[in-house]
Amino acid sequence: MLKGPISYSLIKKSGKARRGVVHTQHGDIQTPVFMPVGTNGAIKALSVEQVEALDPSIILANTYHLYLRLGADFLREAGGLHKLASWDRAYLTDSGGFQVFSLSKMRKFDPDGVHFQSHIDGSRHFYTPELVMDMQAAIGSDIAMVLDDCPALPATHERIEASVKRSIVWAERCARCERPAHQGVFGIVQGGLELDMRLRHLEALVEMPFQGLSIGGLSVGETPEEMHDMCQKFVYQMPEDFPRYLMGVGTPWDLVEGVAAGIDMFDCVMPTRNARMGTVFVGEGKRLNIRNAANRKDMRPLDENCQCLACRRFSRAYIRHLYVAKEITAVILMTIHNLTHYLDLMRKIRTALENDTFEELRAKFQPA
Amino acid sequence: MLKGPISYSLIKKSGKARRGVVHTQHGDIQTPVFMPVGTNGAIKALSVEQVEALDPSIILANTYHLYLRLGADFLREAGGLHKLASWDRAYLTDSGGFQVFSLSKMRKFDPDGVHFQSHIDGSRHFYTPELVMDMQAAIGSDIAMVLDDCPALPATHERIEASVKRSIVWAERCARCERPAHQGVFGIVQGGLELDMRLRHLEALVEMPFQGLSIGGLSVGETPEEMHDMCQKFVYQMPEDFPRYLMGVGTPWDLVEGVAAGIDMFDCVMPTRNARMGTVFVGEGKRLNIRNAANRKDMRPLDENCQCLACRRFSRAYIRHLYVAKEITAVILMTIHNLTHYLDLMRKIRTALENDTFEELRAKFQPA
Repeated sequence: MLKGPISYSLIKKSGKARRGVVHTQHGDIQTPVFMPVGTNGAIKALSVEQVEALDPSIILANTYHLYLRLGADFLREAGGLHKLASWDRAYLTDSGGFQVFSLSKMRKFDPDGVHFQSHIDGSRHFYTPELVMDMQAAIGSDIAMVLDDCPALPATHERIEASVKRSIVWAERCARCERPAHQGVFGIVQGGLELDMRLRHLEALVEMPFQGLSIGGLSVGETPEEMHDMCQKFVYQMPEDFPRYLMGVGTPWDLVEGVAAGIDMFDCVMPTRNARMGTVFVGEGKRLNIRNAANRKDMRPLDENCQCLACRRFSRAYIRHLYVAKEITAVILMTIHNLTHYLDLMRKIRTALENDTFEELRAKFQPA
Repeated sequence: MLKGPISYSLIKKSGKARRGVVHTQHGDIQTPVFMPVGTNGAIKALSVEQVEALDPSIILANTYHLYLRLGADFLREAGGLHKLASWDRAYLTDSGGFQVFSLSKMRKFDPDGVHFQSHIDGSRHFYTPELVMDMQAAIGSDIAMVLDDCPALPATHERIEASVKRSIVWAERCARCERPAHQGVFGIVQGGLELDMRLRHLEALVEMPFQGLSIGGLSVGETPEEMHDMCQKFVYQMPEDFPRYLMGVGTPWDLVEGVAAGIDMFDCVMPTRNARMGTVFVGEGKRLNIRNAANRKDMRPLDENCQCLACRRFSRAYIRHLYVAKEITAVILMTIHNLTHYLDLMRKIRTALENDTFEELRAKFQPA
């Protein structure tokens, strides 16, 4: 591990949980942090001034989608994604490995990388560690991810072992790639639900010059309890001086449990995707389906304790009406609400860690 | 005609064109004005703070859609559409007559009204002048429209004559309905492309206590030239002391020609609908299809002379990328651009009328 363009300051510990700051060239990130997902270089259903009003310190963009749709040459010509998408805070990019395994057709490993067909047009592509690092360099993200092999769970021990071995080799190759001066790289730990495999993977990654480490291969088929248990047993064993990022997670409960295990960073499509499906997050880990007939004449806001634009100005009845009428405006309002809910949750978590009240907050999210 | 809650002040005439103000209980409307359409009580693809940033003085809502989806009882319970949709400027509502003729199935006239089936769920309904006025009272719009019979063009003389006769009877019945103290009612002139039928209809309507008059039954199948010609021959014969509203019109060229004929108010779904279809308005009456391959690497804004959010921050290349990736964000940005284009055009028209330069502006919109 190596201090570089991305660094981490620990402010306070509370059990295994950490209150800290990740420093980037596009601003400081107060952690624990939730990163909204902007797959194609835009948060779905929002315009940039609406995203700015939500005040996230970092957002995620997907290398796989930007590679297939725009390509590295155009992104370089355009001056990178910050300029193209008019976003001046931090970006994290995944490597696209997860999308190759979850979205694309016809995956085939090769000692050098992975062959796949685009889910958009069926075109054939070959991902190598060097290609994904070059693509992330072209995007110009502040935090890049190594290419990894992410098996769905449940998986056999042999599959997990192959994934760890392959991911170690690919991580070494990613670490050797040139990248922009402002960009840091995180390694990704695989190992499924096998603690010893995760520790073996970790042991290899800490020898490489990364600025942070991610936990990959969770929230891919196992139960929430299995994921929380693995985090409890594993995360505290990661280096203290570097940020720890749990990839693609999760529900409000998952975030609270992740923080309790020592995670600093999260991303998930859940708040934006659920908004499009008509589901909003309310209270402590609860959900409300706006289509329910019970909301038809309900003049209350989505969440009486929320100060987002949707909750300050509109009733459930109005938002339901717009959703049922297939108005995009309903999706915009619910996206604003859900992202506010997630970002507010992280603010509450950070305050609770500062005030030594995190365990009280955590208790509210336990399933009944 | 009768001065009432809605009144009109003429500031200046320039040929047949008029620069004026329509006074409502929800603010003054500088005319000529374009009214963005919010069919279901929201401008499609925008959230209310984005609409406020565009600064329209009045928006339109569709009685037909609000009647079928929400009903008068709920709208009364909710305190009207201003409260439900958190909009504190003026609303104009159409009567729903046009939608019955354009959207619904199985229309059948009855001396008392019109039977139709909902385009949403096939349910059967019966519109009467009294029902549509009650519905508009429940919505609480500032300007309500009478129920009319709007035939598509071309139409036979017999069909036009029947429409005028029926519309006169219905207008009288609408004028007798109770309504909120802040609400004015406009009559609607039908008559297709027959000037004498329009004059006969007008003659009947000016005897009734309306606060404004609309030209209906245009932009329903005839050519733009036929519409402009009818406006030139007819509009100046309408009373001077009341606002004149050309319903459902039109392209930028149509607006300029409408103003030249003496029209004060316009509404049209064109800017919002075209945005969803990927078409933006640029320059003087020109259009750009964002999907064109020519835009793939074009780093210019949609319109170099536009100051909207989309043009200030994004390139055609980025917006095209988002549109092709089916991102709602692209539709939001193009909706903001198109509405800005329309509202800016009306600002330019008003300034030109004040400065006696309207004919120069008008000349730029003539087809080559």
